[in-house]
Amino acid sequence: MNPASVRTVGVATPNSRYDILIGTGLLDAPAPWQGLPRASRAVIVSNPVVDGLYGAALERALAPHYRQVSRMLLPDGEQHKDWHSLNLVFDHLLATGCDRKTVLFALGGGVVGDMTGFAAASYMRGVPFVQVPTTLLAQVDSSVGGKTAINHPLGKNMIGAFYQPVRVVCDLATLATLPARELSAGLAEVIKYGPIADMAFFDWIEAHIDALRACEPDALAHAVQRSCEIKAWVVGQDERESGLRAILNFGHTFGHAIESGLGYGTWLHGEAVGCGMVLAAELSAALGLVPAAFVDRLRRLIQRAGLPVVAPPLGTERWLELMRVDKKAEGGETRFIVIESPGQARLQPVPDDIVRRVIEQHGAAA
Amino acid sequence: MNPASVRTVGVATPNSRYDILIGTGLLDAPAPWQGLPRASRAVIVSNPVVDGLYGAALERALAPHYRQVSRMLLPDGEQHKDWHSLNLVFDHLLATGCDRKTVLFALGGGVVGDMTGFAAASYMRGVPFVQVPTTLLAQVDSSVGGKTAINHPLGKNMIGAFYQPVRVVCDLATLATLPARELSAGLAEVIKYGPIADMAFFDWIEAHIDALRACEPDALAHAVQRSCEIKAWVVGQDERESGLRAILNFGHTFGHAIESGLGYGTWLHGEAVGCGMVLAAELSAALGLVPAAFVDRLRRLIQRAGLPVVAPPLGTERWLELMRVDKKAEGGETRFIVIESPGQARLQPVPDDIVRRVIEQHGAAA
Repeated sequence: MNPASVRTVGVATPNSRYDILIGTGLLDAPAPWQGLPRASRAVIVSNPVVDGLYGAALERALAPHYRQVSRMLLPDGEQHKDWHSLNLVFDHLLATGCDRKTVLFALGGGVVGDMTGFAAASYMRGVPFVQVPTTLLAQVDSSVGGKTAINHPLGKNMIGAFYQPVRVVCDLATLATLPARELSAGLAEVIKYGPIADMAFFDWIEAHIDALRACEPDALAHAVQRSCEIKAWVVGQDERESGLRAILNFGHTFGHAIESGLGYGTWLHGEAVGCGMVLAAELSAALGLVPAAFVDRLRRLIQRAGLPVVAPPLGTERWLELMRVDKKAEGGETRFIVIESPGQARLQPVPDDIVRRVIEQHGAAA
Repeated sequence: MNPASVRTVGVATPNSRYDILIGTGLLDAPAPWQGLPRASRAVIVSNPVVDGLYGAALERALAPHYRQVSRMLLPDGEQHKDWHSLNLVFDHLLATGCDRKTVLFALGGGVVGDMTGFAAASYMRGVPFVQVPTTLLAQVDSSVGGKTAINHPLGKNMIGAFYQPVRVVCDLATLATLPARELSAGLAEVIKYGPIADMAFFDWIEAHIDALRACEPDALAHAVQRSCEIKAWVVGQDERESGLRAILNFGHTFGHAIESGLGYGTWLHGEAVGCGMVLAAELSAALGLVPAAFVDRLRRLIQRAGLPVVAPPLGTERWLELMRVDKKAEGGETRFIVIESPGQARLQPVPDDIVRRVIEQHGAAA
């Protein structure tokens, strides 16, 4: 690895500061693994597929820094993002005598990252952890910003913590082994940063969407860096989502309803968010905030990214019910991130009848 | 309630500031419940015994401030401080549509406080909570300082968070219904503040131990206030237990081994800590830090408080093994809080053979 090829994005929150390192081949380079908190033990948490591809490389990279490095595996998939899997991490940490300095490494996608992060937040009331995201979705979204969580049968990400990693290492080389469907799911979150924060970036994505789907390294590096910069800027101002940070959830209220309504794991998170952004844009148009042409442009890009743009037929009342339990609901009122003008978003309550109309006009028949 | 009779202890940590209110009859007074975070819902978490005694009073006190106040019950006892019980809280919160502004009220002892605190820390990644401790132990220890946790089969308090309440309301009237054995258990933590921080307070406790066991209001008020002041001073300097805060664990490494070795709930936490302090003082004497006379004086006071002073026969090697898994162990070395001189404590590693000798000389035969 040529050190010059590592891009660094700094993230500053009120209580922590950490770097996101972005580059190709970082798992095989020594520099990204230096200067982490000292400890006698490190534990790599991963899933069977990712561990088979990259577990040994990460273990080799960490060997010079920790007396003992162990690897433990979680079952793959959003449907396993639950207490039972989380407890497997605690079992491993306690059975192997890990102490409160032990450093956890989350090697995998969003599920591994969210669970390892919450395990790190909770084990002995907090141990340091490093995110090593191996999916595009995790590199541009879930590994940045300190949101960790598990699902509850009654709602996604309902139990968790705000807990920042000490470092994030994004090795773009790992994206080469990502299934095309998962790459597309990650592109949903990349595209998201356009309408909520940066329409120049949206223009760039439109021009490079084919290069991104072909995993061209320079295109990926820019997409990951710019996405992380925007997310870091938002999170730096509002770690705990009392205001601005909510805009990162553009498309997510609809998206969570899709995931929960179809059963976690039926659609990928990014697919649900992609389709959710189309619905949230339609909602913004129905409120008179953006023209129909903007919605069409967003829909076209989401479609070119390989993502679904038609809402699944959950039944309108079930849609509304699923969205009411979303964390952005407050005092019984459902709130949505809407686009107030292209490049700018805000959180606002929307009357049920407008939401109902959007779902009925733009979803598949129930 | 005469407002003049409310004593207030302020606690300041890097990210929060809250008050501990101490007085008799606070559950029946309006003032302690004013100025809390606004929300449409409040949830009182308690256990069947405490709820039967004080649940209705707290619900009445909160009614003017929240549109809806619900009460939910956890099973009583340290053996239920586990994920299963914690999940009952999440089930209730989600089933009743609680949002991220909902305020939780922990009405009960340390088990209810620890679990409600961790539930508040984790529900939707954090909602506000108020501690309403109804045992002496919780008033002087577990409700102050933001340590929340549940147990894991392999260790006590292994899974949790540092999460501060927005207020602590100690109604001394609730101690009148406390069984004598539990009052004694609470006195263990009151006594603790003497050897680690304030020998003048220790003198005062020696002079008032009978008044305290008789629940005399002025004696209780002073004991709770001074204990909270000392704890607040320690926690204010070291919220996350990187240094000074560890002294609050005087007696706890031995104590946790007793609780875990006999099975949680066999000895009360305070009983285990009382006996643990005797052992930790003996350890300090074995290291040449304090004279035997000091150990005898501490043992006598602990005994007068109605607490056990002879270690249970767990078997010496089992003792050592149980203490190695304690959170204060680091890199395989067991560390203890020792008294360096009466009124001052520190954390230090102690060789196994000295620990072994203390257990063999001062424990019951295995």
